[in-house]
Amino acid sequence: MRTLHHFSLQPQSRRIRIQLREKKLDAELVAEKPWERRDGLLRLNPAGETPVLAEEGGLIVAGCYAIGEYLEEAYAENPLLGADPAARAETRRLVAWFDDKFEREVTRNLLHEKLLRRLYGQGGPDSGAIRAGKANIKIHLDYISWLTERRNWLGGNSFSLADIAAAAQLSVIDYLGDVDWESHGDAKNWYARVKSRPSFRAILADTWPGTQPPPHYADLDF
Amino acid sequence: MRTLHHFSLQPQSRRIRIQLREKKLDAELVAEKPWERRDGLLRLNPAGETPVLAEEGGLIVAGCYAIGEYLEEAYAENPLLGADPAARAETRRLVAWFDDKFEREVTRNLLHEKLLRRLYGQGGPDSGAIRAGKANIKIHLDYISWLTERRNWLGGNSFSLADIAAAAQLSVIDYLGDVDWESHGDAKNWYARVKSRPSFRAILADTWPGTQPPPHYADLDF
Repeated sequence: MRTLHHFSLQPQSRRIRIQLREKKLDAELVAEKPWERRDGLLRLNPAGETPVLAEEGGLIVAGCYAIGEYLEEAYAENPLLGADPAARAETRRLVAWFDDKFEREVTRNLLHEKLLRRLYGQGGPDSGAIRAGKANIKIHLDYISWLTERRNWLGGNSFSLADIAAAAQLSVIDYLGDVDWESHGDAKNWYARVKSRPSFRAILADTWPGTQPPPHYADLDF
Repeated sequence: MRTLHHFSLQPQSRRIRIQLREKKLDAELVAEKPWERRDGLLRLNPAGETPVLAEEGGLIVAGCYAIGEYLEEAYAENPLLGADPAARAETRRLVAWFDDKFEREVTRNLLHEKLLRRLYGQGGPDSGAIRAGKANIKIHLDYISWLTERRNWLGGNSFSLADIAAAAQLSVIDYLGDVDWESHGDAKNWYARVKSRPSFRAILADTWPGTQPPPHYADLDF
């Protein structure tokens, strides 16, 4: 059986779980706590990070960049990158936007400060970083609204890895209660469409001990 | 003519310049100063970041993830990702290692603090960050040595995007004079082999006003 080593509150792990479901590929989930630096995880990925995919034949694919591209190369059905070079370039531009820029400007300031810092034994949260994260997210929600006013999905006419990368990041921030959906109607409508896809269901059912999501989090008509 | 918008001291821009040369693809270089947020660059890439590739036919590919994959898909000759799924997974794992982990642990602490902070108008350097960057680079040089004791190149038997991503990062830190090559002989031997490739020549000839590289920087027998 295919296995995915993941951490349920990590956007990059969520991104691969959603991609697997969109491609109708089953995987057994192994929950990792990367801050524990478990030997078994370090052997699979010397960076000690999730996600790591282990295929039944023994192939190990480590990291969301390698896994994301591998799944598209190995399983042609339900393609998520786009059909032509322009579509693929646009999908990948936006995947990097959310995986790198959103991660750096929003997720590190909120998920890291509010939750991961404690788990990694790095002390209490930095309130300045939390303020920066809450300010930065508005620019990203505006950008999502701008894109969805012009396109059916973020990368173009088809649902793609761009939507998955964006929704994976936002879902974690939404879990923390830090997304002001009411001020960003178009972004909210787009997210409601992503949320209602079967590939998103398992993500929304996950909870993290000691941190409960707000009531609207798993509600498809939020 | 193909055009590459780049910033000569940015590892991600260097990575694409080297990849283009390895694939024998010509490109006219347009030097950008991303901190100036030039309208023309923002139109090509809303993130305002280099590198951006503009193909003669009008296709725009923004960001090193999208460009790196695009060049491998569009130009099959001189492949740099590896032939089979395992080789490709290993190449991409290492590209992410250097583009994300090395960037976060070393380059942001050294290039950003010593040079970019001033250019972005963010004040003087943080000496704690510089100390952290200098400590962290040792772990990465040890890892390069460990890999090259076991393999011909970082990702396996063939020169690949993994070598390019690693050397692009290291070349910038070496420009700043912060690589202790003498304590890391195997990493040094690997870097000397990368440096002697024709694809690296133009990179080593670049200088940045007000910051001179150490004497060994462009020396192939350093």
